[in-house]
Amino acid sequence: MNELAIAFDDIRAAAGRLADIALRTPVRCSRVADDRTGAQLYFKCENFQRMGAFKFRGAYNALAQFTPEQRRAGVIAFSSGNHAQAVALAARLLGMPSLIVMPKDAPPAKLAATRGYQAGQPGSEILLYDRYTEDREAIGRRIAAERGMTLIPPYDHAHVMAGQGTAALELIQETGPLDTLLVCVGGGGLIAGCAVAAKQLAPEIVVHGVEPEAGNDTQQSLARGEIVHIETPKTIADGAQTQHSGALTFPVIQRHVASILTVSDAQLVATMRFFAERMKMVVEPTGCLAAAAALEGAIDLRGQRVGVIVSGGNVDLGAFAGWLAS
Amino acid sequence: MNELAIAFDDIRAAAGRLADIALRTPVRCSRVADDRTGAQLYFKCENFQRMGAFKFRGAYNALAQFTPEQRRAGVIAFSSGNHAQAVALAARLLGMPSLIVMPKDAPPAKLAATRGYQAGQPGSEILLYDRYTEDREAIGRRIAAERGMTLIPPYDHAHVMAGQGTAALELIQETGPLDTLLVCVGGGGLIAGCAVAAKQLAPEIVVHGVEPEAGNDTQQSLARGEIVHIETPKTIADGAQTQHSGALTFPVIQRHVASILTVSDAQLVATMRFFAERMKMVVEPTGCLAAAAALEGAIDLRGQRVGVIVSGGNVDLGAFAGWLAS
Repeated sequence: MNELAIAFDDIRAAAGRLADIALRTPVRCSRVADDRTGAQLYFKCENFQRMGAFKFRGAYNALAQFTPEQRRAGVIAFSSGNHAQAVALAARLLGMPSLIVMPKDAPPAKLAATRGYQAGQPGSEILLYDRYTEDREAIGRRIAAERGMTLIPPYDHAHVMAGQGTAALELIQETGPLDTLLVCVGGGGLIAGCAVAAKQLAPEIVVHGVEPEAGNDTQQSLARGEIVHIETPKTIADGAQTQHSGALTFPVIQRHVASILTVSDAQLVATMRFFAERMKMVVEPTGCLAAAAALEGAIDLRGQRVGVIVSGGNVDLGAFAGWLAS
Repeated sequence: MNELAIAFDDIRAAAGRLADIALRTPVRCSRVADDRTGAQLYFKCENFQRMGAFKFRGAYNALAQFTPEQRRAGVIAFSSGNHAQAVALAARLLGMPSLIVMPKDAPPAKLAATRGYQAGQPGSEILLYDRYTEDREAIGRRIAAERGMTLIPPYDHAHVMAGQGTAALELIQETGPLDTLLVCVGGGGLIAGCAVAAKQLAPEIVVHGVEPEAGNDTQQSLARGEIVHIETPKTIADGAQTQHSGALTFPVIQRHVASILTVSDAQLVATMRFFAERMKMVVEPTGCLAAAAALEGAIDLRGQRVGVIVSGGNVDLGAFAGWLAS
C-alpha cells in the first residue's frame, strides 16, 4: 500500500493555519430537500467562504507554508477561475506578491475580482495571454523562473489538498458521524482532502464523487485503474472542466472514494433553481454537482444522514439569471 | 407617556417560545460592503429563516399563546405574502387549522408554498377571493365568526411585534452594542419589535427605518405626528406596500425610531445584485430596503458599527432573474 500524499494530521494542521482566517462556513438544512430525498441532508456552504469558494482553504494553507525566501519572491498561479482569486487573496493576506496568469478573454468580472483581491499588495499583477496563440505554461514557467516565484497548482499539491479537506473536517465536527458524503470532482483536490478527513472522523462513511456527465474522466479512471485523459468537456460546471485527475489526488480517490456519480447540465440548472428558490442561496454550477446527485436521484439516500459539499457561488450574474429564468 | 404595546420582557418571552423552533439565523459580514460604506455592517439574514422571512417569528409567537379553545378552532389570516406562509407553517407546527384568505390571482408559487406549509394539518385551507369584486375583510370576518377562528393581523398585534423583535435581540446578542440599526418598514411590526429590543440591549443605538420612496407613509406620519394614510404605493418592495402604520406600531416608532430613510426601486435592484454577486444570497426587494439605505448612500455611516436587518428572500424566480439581468 503506497503512501498517500496527505494524511489526517495534514488536514488538522491546515485547520490550525486557517483558524480565524478562513470562515467557518454554515451547515444548512432544508426540509424540502429532506422530504424529496427521504434523507437528512447537511449542506456545507462554501459558497459563503471568503472569495466565494472552498479554494481559499487550499491556497492559503499552501502559501502559509512558504519559506521567507519564497514569500519575498511570491506566488504564481494559472487560472481563470476560483483558484486565481484564492491565490490572489491568500497572497495579499500573507503580504506576498502574486502573479496570476489568465486568458485575455476571461470574464471582466473575474479579472476585476482578482485585481480587487490583489489590491494594495506591491508586486502583484495579472498576466494576460492569448489562449489561442500562446502557451500559458511556457509563459508562466519562464516568468516564475526569472523572478524565483513558486507555482501553486489548483489541485495536485499536498498542501492544497490538505487545505480543502478542512471543509469536511468542519462539517463532520458539526454534524457528527454521517452515512454518506457527496463531493464534486474536478481535478480531485477537494474530494481527496475531504475523503481523508471524513474517513478519519467517521470510518463507516461512504464517500461519492460527482462529475458532470460530459466530463466523467475520474469515473473512467476508477474503472480503468489509471488516470484517463479526456478532451475538455462541454459543461456549465466550469470548475469541473478538467481533463484528468492529478497524480497526487487520484491515489487518494482510489483508496477512499466508493464511486463517482454523474449529473447532467439540466440537473445542475434544476438544482441551482432549488438553491435560489428554497434556500435563498446563489450556487455556481460546479457547486451544484454534489447536491444534484442527491436531489435529482442519482443515488438512493433514504434513511441516511448525508453531507453535501456546496463548493462555491462565483457565477456571472447574467448567466445565472438566464438559468433561473429557463 | 402612554404605555407602548410591547416591552422588552415580551420580546424575551417570545425568544423563549421560539427557541429550537425558529432558526437562529446567521449574522454575515462583507468586506466589500464595509469598504463601500466605511462602516462595519452586520447583516442579520432573515432570508434564511423558516419559510424565508422574519414573519415566522411573529406568527409563531402569536399562535403559541392561543388558548386551548382558540387552538381547536384555529387561525385565520389575510395575506398574499410572507405573513400567510408564516401563519400556515406556525399553525401546522402547533397542530391547529389555518384558513388563509388570498386573492385568486396570487402567484401560483405562493399558493403552492402556502399549501405546502398547511399540508397534513386537518382543517387547513386557502380561501380564494376575487380582489376586484369581493371584500376580503367581510368574507374573512364572516368565516372567522362562523368557525370561531382567531384572526392574526400581519403587524398590528402585540404578540406579532414581540416575535419580530427577536431578530434584533439575536443580532445584538451576537455582535454586542451597535451604533446604528437599519430596519425596513411596512406596517411597522418588525421595526417596532426590533427598536424595543435594540434600545434595551444598546441604549445608545440609533434606529432608522427604511421605506420605498414611493411609499413613505411612515416618514410622513412621523413628520405630522399622526398616522398618515396613502394610496397603495407602486414599488417592487411588495412587503412594504402598506398604506399606513398600525395603531400599535406607530407609537413605538414615534418613541424609538430616529428617522425614516427612503430608497428607490433602482437602488433596491442594485442592492439585490450586490447580495447575489458578493454575498451569494437571494434577497427579496423588501429585504433589500435596509441594506440599500447603507450601500446606496441614504445615510453616512462612516466609522460606525451597524446592524442591518435582511428581512426575507421570497421572490419569484422569474422576476428575480429579470432584476439580476437588468
